[in-house]
Amino acid sequence: MIDLRTDTVTRPTPGMRAAIAAAEVGDEQKGEDPTTRALEERVAGLLGAQAAVFVPSATMANQIALQLWSRPGDGLVASAGAHLIHSEAGGPAALAGLMVQPIFSADGTFDDIQFTGAVVGDGAEKPRTTIVSIENSHSNAGGRVWPLDRLEQLRSAAPRYGIRIHLDGARLLNAATHTNVSPLRLCAGMDSVTFCLSKGLGCPFGALLAIPAAAAAEARRIKQRLGGAMRQSGMLAAAGLYALDHHVDRTADDHIRARRLADILAGTGLVRGPVHTNVVALDATTVYWDREELRLRLAEEGVLVSALPRPGMLRAVTHLDVDDHDIEHAGAVITRVLDGKSVRPRP
Amino acid sequence: MIDLRTDTVTRPTPGMRAAIAAAEVGDEQKGEDPTTRALEERVAGLLGAQAAVFVPSATMANQIALQLWSRPGDGLVASAGAHLIHSEAGGPAALAGLMVQPIFSADGTFDDIQFTGAVVGDGAEKPRTTIVSIENSHSNAGGRVWPLDRLEQLRSAAPRYGIRIHLDGARLLNAATHTNVSPLRLCAGMDSVTFCLSKGLGCPFGALLAIPAAAAAEARRIKQRLGGAMRQSGMLAAAGLYALDHHVDRTADDHIRARRLADILAGTGLVRGPVHTNVVALDATTVYWDREELRLRLAEEGVLVSALPRPGMLRAVTHLDVDDHDIEHAGAVITRVLDGKSVRPRP
Amino acid sequence: MIDLRTDTVTRPTPGMRAAIAAAEVGDEQKGEDPTTRALEERVAGLLGAQAAVFVPSATMANQIALQLWSRPGDGLVASAGAHLIHSEAGGPAALAGLMVQPIFSADGTFDDIQFTGAVVGDGAEKPRTTIVSIENSHSNAGGRVWPLDRLEQLRSAAPRYGIRIHLDGARLLNAATHTNVSPLRLCAGMDSVTFCLSKGLGCPFGALLAIPAAAAAEARRIKQRLGGAMRQSGMLAAAGLYALDHHVDRTADDHIRARRLADILAGTGLVRGPVHTNVVALDATTVYWDREELRLRLAEEGVLVSALPRPGMLRAVTHLDVDDHDIEHAGAVITRVLDGKSVRPRP
Amino acid sequence: MIDLRTDTVTRPTPGMRAAIAAAEVGDEQKGEDPTTRALEERVAGLLGAQAAVFVPSATMANQIALQLWSRPGDGLVASAGAHLIHSEAGGPAALAGLMVQPIFSADGTFDDIQFTGAVVGDGAEKPRTTIVSIENSHSNAGGRVWPLDRLEQLRSAAPRYGIRIHLDGARLLNAATHTNVSPLRLCAGMDSVTFCLSKGLGCPFGALLAIPAAAAAEARRIKQRLGGAMRQSGMLAAAGLYALDHHVDRTADDHIRARRLADILAGTGLVRGPVHTNVVALDATTVYWDREELRLRLAEEGVLVSALPRPGMLRAVTHLDVDDHDIEHAGAVITRVLDGKSVRPRP
Repeated sequence: MIDLRTDTVTRPTPGMRAAIAAAEVGDEQKGEDPTTRALEERVAGLLGAQAAVFVPSATMANQIALQLWSRPGDGLVASAGAHLIHSEAGGPAALAGLMVQPIFSADGTFDDIQFTGAVVGDGAEKPRTTIVSIENSHSNAGGRVWPLDRLEQLRSAAPRYGIRIHLDGARLLNAATHTNVSPLRLCAGMDSVTFCLSKGLGCPFGALLAIPAAAAAEARRIKQRLGGAMRQSGMLAAAGLYALDHHVDRTADDHIRARRLADILAGTGLVRGPVHTNVVALDATTVYWDREELRLRLAEEGVLVSALPRPGMLRAVTHLDVDDHDIEHAGAVITRVLDGKSVRPRP
Repeated sequence: MIDLRTDTVTRPTPGMRAAIAAAEVGDEQKGEDPTTRALEERVAGLLGAQAAVFVPSATMANQIALQLWSRPGDGLVASAGAHLIHSEAGGPAALAGLMVQPIFSADGTFDDIQFTGAVVGDGAEKPRTTIVSIENSHSNAGGRVWPLDRLEQLRSAAPRYGIRIHLDGARLLNAATHTNVSPLRLCAGMDSVTFCLSKGLGCPFGALLAIPAAAAAEARRIKQRLGGAMRQSGMLAAAGLYALDHHVDRTADDHIRARRLADILAGTGLVRGPVHTNVVALDATTVYWDREELRLRLAEEGVLVSALPRPGMLRAVTHLDVDDHDIEHAGAVITRVLDGKSVRPRP
Repeated sequence: MIDLRTDTVTRPTPGMRAAIAAAEVGDEQKGEDPTTRALEERVAGLLGAQAAVFVPSATMANQIALQLWSRPGDGLVASAGAHLIHSEAGGPAALAGLMVQPIFSADGTFDDIQFTGAVVGDGAEKPRTTIVSIENSHSNAGGRVWPLDRLEQLRSAAPRYGIRIHLDGARLLNAATHTNVSPLRLCAGMDSVTFCLSKGLGCPFGALLAIPAAAAAEARRIKQRLGGAMRQSGMLAAAGLYALDHHVDRTADDHIRARRLADILAGTGLVRGPVHTNVVALDATTVYWDREELRLRLAEEGVLVSALPRPGMLRAVTHLDVDDHDIEHAGAVITRVLDGKSVRPRP
Repeated sequence: MIDLRTDTVTRPTPGMRAAIAAAEVGDEQKGEDPTTRALEERVAGLLGAQAAVFVPSATMANQIALQLWSRPGDGLVASAGAHLIHSEAGGPAALAGLMVQPIFSADGTFDDIQFTGAVVGDGAEKPRTTIVSIENSHSNAGGRVWPLDRLEQLRSAAPRYGIRIHLDGARLLNAATHTNVSPLRLCAGMDSVTFCLSKGLGCPFGALLAIPAAAAAEARRIKQRLGGAMRQSGMLAAAGLYALDHHVDRTADDHIRARRLADILAGTGLVRGPVHTNVVALDATTVYWDREELRLRLAEEGVLVSALPRPGMLRAVTHLDVDDHDIEHAGAVITRVLDGKSVRPRP
């Protein structure tokens, strides 16, 4: 099986397993786990933040940030397809009481005109916008990366409205690799940043929320409430430190492989949009079968892809457990399955 | 001053004041206010519901309904410009924990294709849609009325997804008047209906939520929690009964006057969209001044209009305190102010 | 029927009805209702506050205050029998996310030792106390009034912990009458005060929340969200102004009548605790029948009393619709019903 | 340093580290992690439940259970010192909207009389009780174990009121060891059970929530929302399986050592209450220094104890990283420090 469903399916490498097994630990909830503290400091430094808080998942990091910067009844502007809108079980409303004020855009990014158009201002009856969330790279849009000028526009516009910017950087290293801009610079002007260890970095799980030092105590309180306070979390943090040492540079390999897959499939008419990072978006509406049929046929042939939350769209995602050979093979399988079935009007 | 800002500005008539002063009352919170009970029964009958609960405002009726039909983290599909999205201070998220899943449409209505496109299905990480709200007539879209076939589509589609339909009928009588279909038929298949006394009906305040009998106890519990339980509310309910006796038929007059105003303004290029009910939507982007300037100039001339929550749009609304003469005068004022300024590209 | 169940059952007097019918009104939600504004200013002055917000009920006033002074997960210290704990359908937790940190006390008051014992301090895992609520007079404790030195203790202690003090003064005039201290002095040092029109003041419904001017905009936002924004609320505010003109001084009559009833019943052994205000607490555990049986027997004889939320306790409450004759008659009825049945061990 | 602060400070043993390093893993969020599934099935079997859900912490397990069995505004009966009341950052109110209805008891247990006294019944204005939580053994009461007859009383009483029983069994194995009753029998009649891996079992972190199969999908949705969905969680689950194989029987050793410590200290007058499990409650109000001074003096001498959330109380807790020698040494140190200072009235 070649598993291209998502980059969360990676298994820890032998080196990472050894690092986990050897981790120096203490009680994280008491602030006594040295490995967790080392990881928190390292990620804070990487992102240019004053503090970082280790949590079990990027979802929890996002949800803590939303609660930090808002009061119930406020508004959250984000891409309609953002992970925190679509895939966090309604946390923004259920936990933070936030009104979703979505921007619909094909690539998951938006400019300052779209942003200000979505902002709801003050007034006793208004769900005033207090947060904008940026997902970079944007998973459901096919791993698309925010143009630097759009980041700059938001950095400039949001504070004028008193609006906080949260960066869902679960796949920030992919954005940094694509733009050849450091994570630190991509995070400039952000009030909080989610950084995930379990996607391209290949850790079992875990994420960090980077925030100003003044917000750390409240963030840890919310983390405790959500059930994210751990004990000897150094076992997990050690995987993060290992990944930062060994898996950052290889992000580029995932991107190269994704582009290679798109090249192989160029003739099928299946690929949609540019390949920025490790995701190839596939448009099943251009082929004979519907999306679910195509997915099942590919699975039968040993290639796993998954649905994007857009009508008719699939995605193939490269990661640590996929090598050049896998990509060539997957490309060949998809081409063969589609042979004579693609670029055809459906009946 | 001719106040065309909205239909909530009406003052109670002498007849209504007399009805209020003479109301028979008891302790509503104990179920002992006879006038409130009479009004609840009458409105339930009017809407074809098993029960109706009297509350201080249409906002509270809407917010109770949302809490009845959902759990925190569920999704709410509604027009992006719906009152409960735009003008209830974030209640759907703050009180019910609902993720807003908006449909953007020019007239505030949507068909079953748009509806099913907005619905989020099951899955552990999904904010599954459990409610769709229909606003009929739709205030922020310029008093537009839902086509009957679209109501029928939703009545048919929603139950297939296990989704409840809430009808925000704050201006239901306007819809009934426009379509010449009874309120009862317009409410068929709805799980809950908000009915407001303070718009076209001209009461000081107050609204009702029509629901199945099985939901009444929980609705009264939520009403109590929100602070909507009253005592001698018969004083207010008497106004409602009076309005149902005396102000229903005159809804048609408001519509005739709104159309008359649109006719007067036809040559200015200011009117946008059809006039379904008591609202004339005015497009200030077609004139020399911007929206706020135009609003102020009209106010200086004694004609009050107000902003719609769409860029550049104003509205003029007819109601109980506006007569034929007022409309002729307002039309003349607007025409004069715009003279030579309209249908012109802005600099 | 002599209705001694509670002081919310009063019906508006002819004079109040006339004031309501003649009220000058405007759109309250737009800040244009002159009578509502007059009432808000008058009550703010009476309580020594910078601002007051008119709402439909004391419950809503309480719930707005709790949301003003806290964030979800904070703690609320209050008497276990306080109205906002026992009788607001779980609003403190459901709306404000507050952890209830109750103090159990027989008379509903507590001193600074009990207060500091209930306070939960900071710490990531702690539900830190941010509000203390005082109910004065305390309804469920039998209309008991806070001793002035305890008020002074809290005024002094709470700020040292950074804790806000909310005064649920739904029956503040009863406390002022009993202590012969002005409402203004009783409110000194309070961050917010609920003031109700529908108890001793005899209005149909309505209450005010007195707060600092800086909190008014947020209070009105929450009021809007809860569904408390009204339109021509001057109809209701006029009752409040009338009551402040005509029904304040007569509070003393209610107290005299309550004490008279207690005197009549002195020999029955039924009265429990001192009579501070307009409530006589009756201990049904001292008589032959159980509480519900006694209540029904009295009702059959034309005297309505109601249960207190304490085992075996009933209450008789005096108010605007009860005169001297009613009290003599009620006292005689209760004495007759109990004849030979009281001060006896139950089988 | 001998760390007797709590049993969460244990470090994974070499055997456990090896098990972690060798774990077979998959994507837990997709239900594909075999080790996590094995642990879930094993714990479900151990507790007699249909299903178990793996989560990062006992706090999250508790918070999920509370949300499963309630709606916002409902009431939660529990011991006032329960972990979910005192140490979960206000989760019951902030996440589930639950009104805390505490029972104050010295040992953290309560009988059916106390229970029914705390229950709030139905009624539109009432925060009706829908959950009772039992903590067994009860940490803040000094590791006290529920008498079997009290469990039986609640099992019988709660369903009569339609109330769900949640068992916070974070330290259930301690209760089972003390009573010599199987975990399965201790869980009989419970609607949900929290089971923690990081206390006596010595895992780095992780817990499970045992529930009926019908509740599993909703539990996983809430888990996702709180940020508890993991990926290759088998790395952590492997520690749990290892602990169930190797660390269950040794629970008895912790209890023996706790009792031994109490015996050593018997002459100091410091020990309070019986030693049921691995906790020795120490009453610092009986000695010369105040609690914090005593704690610091012991720490200077190399013995770490921690505060209980009761005035003047400390605790010493035995666990996997404390052996017989440590206990003898700790006992000697405490005795020496207290020499001549105990059982004395404070100045």
